Amino acid sequence: MKAVVFDKDKQLKFVTDYAKPVPKKGEALVRVTMAGICNTDYEITKGYMGYVGILGHEVVGIVEEINDEDKSLLGKRVVPEISYGCKDPDCEWCGKKLYRHCPNRHTLGIWQKDGCMAEYFTMPIEVLFEVPENVPTKQAVFVEPLAAACEILEQLHIKPFEKVVILGDGKLGLITALALNAQNIDVLLVGKHQNKLDIAKAQGVQTQLLQEFKVEKIYDVVVEATGTAGGFETAMALTKPRGVLVLKSTVASGKELNLAPIVIDEITVLGSRCGQFPAALRLLKSGKVDFSPMISGIYPADKSLEAFEKNKEKDTLKVLIEFSK
Amino acid sequence: MKAVVFDKDKQLKFVTDYAKPVPKKGEALVRVTMAGICNTDYEITKGYMGYVGILGHEVVGIVEEINDEDKSLLGKRVVPEISYGCKDPDCEWCGKKLYRHCPNRHTLGIWQKDGCMAEYFTMPIEVLFEVPENVPTKQAVFVEPLAAACEILEQLHIKPFEKVVILGDGKLGLITALALNAQNIDVLLVGKHQNKLDIAKAQGVQTQLLQEFKVEKIYDVVVEATGTAGGFETAMALTKPRGVLVLKSTVASGKELNLAPIVIDEITVLGSRCGQFPAALRLLKSGKVDFSPMISGIYPADKSLEAFEKNKEKDTLKVLIEFSK
Repeated sequence: MKAVVFDKDKQLKFVTDYAKPVPKKGEALVRVTMAGICNTDYEITKGYMGYVGILGHEVVGIVEEINDEDKSLLGKRVVPEISYGCKDPDCEWCGKKLYRHCPNRHTLGIWQKDGCMAEYFTMPIEVLFEVPENVPTKQAVFVEPLAAACEILEQLHIKPFEKVVILGDGKLGLITALALNAQNIDVLLVGKHQNKLDIAKAQGVQTQLLQEFKVEKIYDVVVEATGTAGGFETAMALTKPRGVLVLKSTVASGKELNLAPIVIDEITVLGSRCGQFPAALRLLKSGKVDFSPMISGIYPADKSLEAFEKNKEKDTLKVLIEFSK
Repeated sequence: MKAVVFDKDKQLKFVTDYAKPVPKKGEALVRVTMAGICNTDYEITKGYMGYVGILGHEVVGIVEEINDEDKSLLGKRVVPEISYGCKDPDCEWCGKKLYRHCPNRHTLGIWQKDGCMAEYFTMPIEVLFEVPENVPTKQAVFVEPLAAACEILEQLHIKPFEKVVILGDGKLGLITALALNAQNIDVLLVGKHQNKLDIAKAQGVQTQLLQEFKVEKIYDVVVEATGTAGGFETAMALTKPRGVLVLKSTVASGKELNLAPIVIDEITVLGSRCGQFPAALRLLKSGKVDFSPMISGIYPADKSLEAFEKNKEKDTLKVLIEFSK
């Protein structure tokens, strides 16, 4: 089958002869309709996680086969949470459906599991979710980063009177701003790119250019979504005493950081990663968020490598790859 | 009066002609019996906070004068919380008695307020607390760092089944271990010095030498009390997914740090500073903690500079200065 592979020679390749996967007991075989390129995919091509295999973890597909007695998802349009766990009854993480923390987890296209940038992938049925009928595939393919945004609300109680600022107007910042704003949270998105801020502004988010933004220690919650050490330091300077700094991106490592403000202002730094899908699917179903202005291009599978090139360009937001209709 | 001063020439001096302070409205004049040297005092002599004035914020004294209608503390043995606020009725921090976060705060010997290493100091009566009769002055002088340890329990709910590890067997680590252990929390103290660990062990704390300690990601709560970047990185490696890393010391700044584990394991980093005194005084009154084995020396006021020299020595824990009986 066709697949986008990061191979043992550390090369990104588009191949047409990858073996079609066979679903194990409890798994479904999913035909991919559309996949999204995430920055993590790009990081993997630079060596992140030491991963080798089919890339991709943002996807929508149709269930074609199920190796289980429960066939209820057969023929359905689905999205997969990206990790599944060991299913050991004693595993505290699997018990909480926090498969991402299971020490024996498998993660689509990131860890011990081929990804979804291919004609087919397999995943256990308990991590597949049906896409509501009214949600177009081009929106549904955003469910994974949207779930990562909604995850903030699973970890943190943001009170109605609290002020939230999000730093960074890349994909992560935009999706987080749209997701929180759609849930009636008082959000300000700050970034360097007027064109990107305008996408959020058009959907009712308050926005401000970084160069016009006053750095004041007045925010109850600060979401760092720039992925830079400088962004992290600005985030500390914005978080009021006893406030929460949500660390959404793995800040560029190896930089010098002074963590003293965390202690002096008794700040909580909350690491936040991916999320469970049901809340994100409810939000998509409600129509309160629209990610279509973030789509910078849709490429057919055969042009996957061009899609990766497009993803590197400045001002590119989400690049999608279509594997089937 | 006699006073230990860090002066405008950036020199630590013992003087005998410092003007005796006069209590303002709402304040008490306190005659100092005993003061403790904290690492913060030493940091100040290296330029921390840009502070100039009388040093010291750990102290026990007798109230000699009160400039207020409420004279209830007159003649009492007291300890002062180290900060007082603006008292503006609209100040959210003063309203919560979190004076340390009031933007217009004054902090004994650290910020805009002469400290307590002198024959006298003044503080507003609302931050003075009477020492219970059964608590010796040599124990009561530990109330400030003990309150800082108890502060962890104000910020964080440590559940009875959770495992806590404290990294660092200096003053901060020892006091935190003794305080949490005395409150029936499952604590393990890890450090490099058997003689220091033995102080905690003698009071029932589980201890382990760092060189014999296995670094495993199994702790619900990790308290970083080494003040080093290496300690912070070990702390991240010990915190289980979704666990809490309590940052008690201002980690040596300007070091390279990789914060990715915070995001990947969705760790909460909780900055924690000083604490309110009532819980610490209850603990002292109960007799469940004994800090006397931590006293490395008691110096008369005239030998204050020797006390500071002693404080620099390896293996020194708490050095006390006696200003009056």
